[in-house]
Amino acid sequence: MLANLETIQLHAEGSVLFATIKAPPMNLLGPEMVRDLVSLIQQVEADSAVRVIVFKSADPDYFISHVDITRVAEYRQYATKLAGEPSLGLLFRYLSSSRLISIAQIQGRVRGAGSEFVLACDMRFAARETAIFGQPEQGFGFIPGAGGVQHLARLTGRGRALEIILSAQDYDAELAERYGWINRALPADQLDDFVKSLAHRISKFPAAGQKVLKGRIDAITLASVEDFRRDSESFLAAGATAETQARTKAAFEHGFQTPEGEKDLGRMLGELG
Amino acid sequence: MLANLETIQLHAEGSVLFATIKAPPMNLLGPEMVRDLVSLIQQVEADSAVRVIVFKSADPDYFISHVDITRVAEYRQYATKLAGEPSLGLLFRYLSSSRLISIAQIQGRVRGAGSEFVLACDMRFAARETAIFGQPEQGFGFIPGAGGVQHLARLTGRGRALEIILSAQDYDAELAERYGWINRALPADQLDDFVKSLAHRISKFPAAGQKVLKGRIDAITLASVEDFRRDSESFLAAGATAETQARTKAAFEHGFQTPEGEKDLGRMLGELG
Amino acid sequence: MLANLETIQLHAEGSVLFATIKAPPMNLLGPEMVRDLVSLIQQVEADSAVRVIVFKSADPDYFISHVDITRVAEYRQYATKLAGEPSLGLLFRYLSSSRLISIAQIQGRVRGAGSEFVLACDMRFAARETAIFGQPEQGFGFIPGAGGVQHLARLTGRGRALEIILSAQDYDAELAERYGWINRALPADQLDDFVKSLAHRISKFPAAGQKVLKGRIDAITLASVEDFRRDSESFLAAGATAETQARTKAAFEHGFQTPEGEKDLGRMLGELG
Repeated sequence: MLANLETIQLHAEGSVLFATIKAPPMNLLGPEMVRDLVSLIQQVEADSAVRVIVFKSADPDYFISHVDITRVAEYRQYATKLAGEPSLGLLFRYLSSSRLISIAQIQGRVRGAGSEFVLACDMRFAARETAIFGQPEQGFGFIPGAGGVQHLARLTGRGRALEIILSAQDYDAELAERYGWINRALPADQLDDFVKSLAHRISKFPAAGQKVLKGRIDAITLASVEDFRRDSESFLAAGATAETQARTKAAFEHGFQTPEGEKDLGRMLGELG
Repeated sequence: MLANLETIQLHAEGSVLFATIKAPPMNLLGPEMVRDLVSLIQQVEADSAVRVIVFKSADPDYFISHVDITRVAEYRQYATKLAGEPSLGLLFRYLSSSRLISIAQIQGRVRGAGSEFVLACDMRFAARETAIFGQPEQGFGFIPGAGGVQHLARLTGRGRALEIILSAQDYDAELAERYGWINRALPADQLDDFVKSLAHRISKFPAAGQKVLKGRIDAITLASVEDFRRDSESFLAAGATAETQARTKAAFEHGFQTPEGEKDLGRMLGELG
Repeated sequence: MLANLETIQLHAEGSVLFATIKAPPMNLLGPEMVRDLVSLIQQVEADSAVRVIVFKSADPDYFISHVDITRVAEYRQYATKLAGEPSLGLLFRYLSSSRLISIAQIQGRVRGAGSEFVLACDMRFAARETAIFGQPEQGFGFIPGAGGVQHLARLTGRGRALEIILSAQDYDAELAERYGWINRALPADQLDDFVKSLAHRISKFPAAGQKVLKGRIDAITLASVEDFRRDSESFLAAGATAETQARTKAAFEHGFQTPEGEKDLGRMLGELG
């Protein structure tokens, strides 16, 4: 029996596990959430009764906001346990290449490493009315460091990936679907039933074939460890520059890392300095 | 003059050949159809008067249903003549890399190796109201073995390819278009004219340039012989497991490989065992 | 201060440069325009005050029509200065890999090397009502020689890239968006504001991060120099055949390289010989 974690609530139905992220006030991806993700993945991988894991959010406004930029060294350290090195991107890549089938059921905002987390999931379905997507890193001077560059370039192509990341803008679910960022945008009131039904369906098909299939798809579509590592290092290097630090400081003065201040983060970044 | 084959009716107009699949009761891809496809491709490649080949179906409900799972060894043997080894995927890949320009005009259901056949064609246009697409293999425990993994991963990206194949679900033409599985979904009553006009147009442009172009596009987009071969082997290996055999047997008990039983195959697979 | 060029008018706002193509009567890409593009890119790259360059057209009917097929040797020679060899595709690739962020704001027709130019830009936004896209080369017997094969295969996938290039047909902006040829089709009366706002937004974000980001995206999405060079050579080789020369001559007799004669170039090519 899986116990709830500090930032993730668990609910099992057959061989589907629903993992609901609950880290008030805005589901920041900090050391606690990374620690809990590592613990969750480890436990679940060892438990052959679980086949599919559905990630949801307890917060209607934020699925995962982004990393806690004040605690980068700490949360990276927690990733080491599974990734073998202190890289969030490699932790996410570990999830992608797991035998577990992961589905992100997205409502609210999912930006930065939050977007990179859902990109690492095997599938992404979002509430058409409420989901908002963004890779805001370039608004500060950062490079997306946890796989966003790798996934978006392959899913959306050169022009759209450059637009998404260079603009650091917010995208609604409908446009995210058109660009290939997510599988599909669905009406919010149908999302829960759709994902639940899909998860249960997949959980009943033979596991051995699923494992082989994921390996074959990933041989074509999943970027190498080296590529993830290099993006991770670029993120750190960009964060060490004076310009990035100054813009990050300015963002904090405009409400960065507060639920109200990030409602319209895309706009805020355009108005900084 | 090309003569009709047992399972494929031929009609030439200028340098366009219309090949209509007619293998009642449901256009199963069995030894006869593989034999006829091999014979057709060989004859047409040797006939410089034919430039474009349009594949259609005489059955409004089934374009190609999928392989006859009771006769795998037999139909594979027929593929050897063109593919050099007993692999349906390599036969399909042979068609992709041919000088012939192939267009699939799809109405009705096209699942499994049927979907993989249209994926091997150079272009795919489908009737919005009637076409249904599926890769049902994982519902049994199989891996798509004739190129579906290779094409779908490249055309639709990691998330959508995993969804399509892991779910073993049916997709309508509109969604297949949004995912990139097909070129376009068109109103059923316009499909015939659209494809005919496109085929004749292309058939009048210089052949030498078309051959060079296909080679350049395929250098970027067509998976290697080795990748096709490996999927082919994975299909066989998965079929040898007790779980896959048990689910296949159960599917037969629910109408698998009958026209009525497969009307709603996606649903049937979700209800198996 | 950047001075206007013979075929390109310049207007700077902050660190955004608006470059408006004006080469009456139909914005043919001839030696003058290549010379001016080379000069523009060189000057702007050396001027750190410019960060983003927006390409527009002064002609509502033609963004860039295509190359001046009567002056291939001349315009190729001008590309050498930046590309290191006489290849338009390598000149365009030089722009793609520049630190400059390039945005194509498209109204009117953009065909052949015009399409290849906008494909080389980092982003493409088009007027829904007026933009028309085409790679008409195969209608003559040519291979797209300036990067169209490389970009379209990666952006639109095997089936759609083959359709676009083999058909030599015209595509409206809405379909070009669905196929991934462009980022987005927008209402013509909103296009100017949208692009201006995006350009200014990006121009204020840290330049160092943008340079790293472009490098990382291009490592995944931008074809090699060798691939561009080979397409360039295929274009020349195809142009040397008697069939291509005869079709080109026939096209000239039907109004090719005249503004009126190319209004409906897709149709004209289908009716040639």
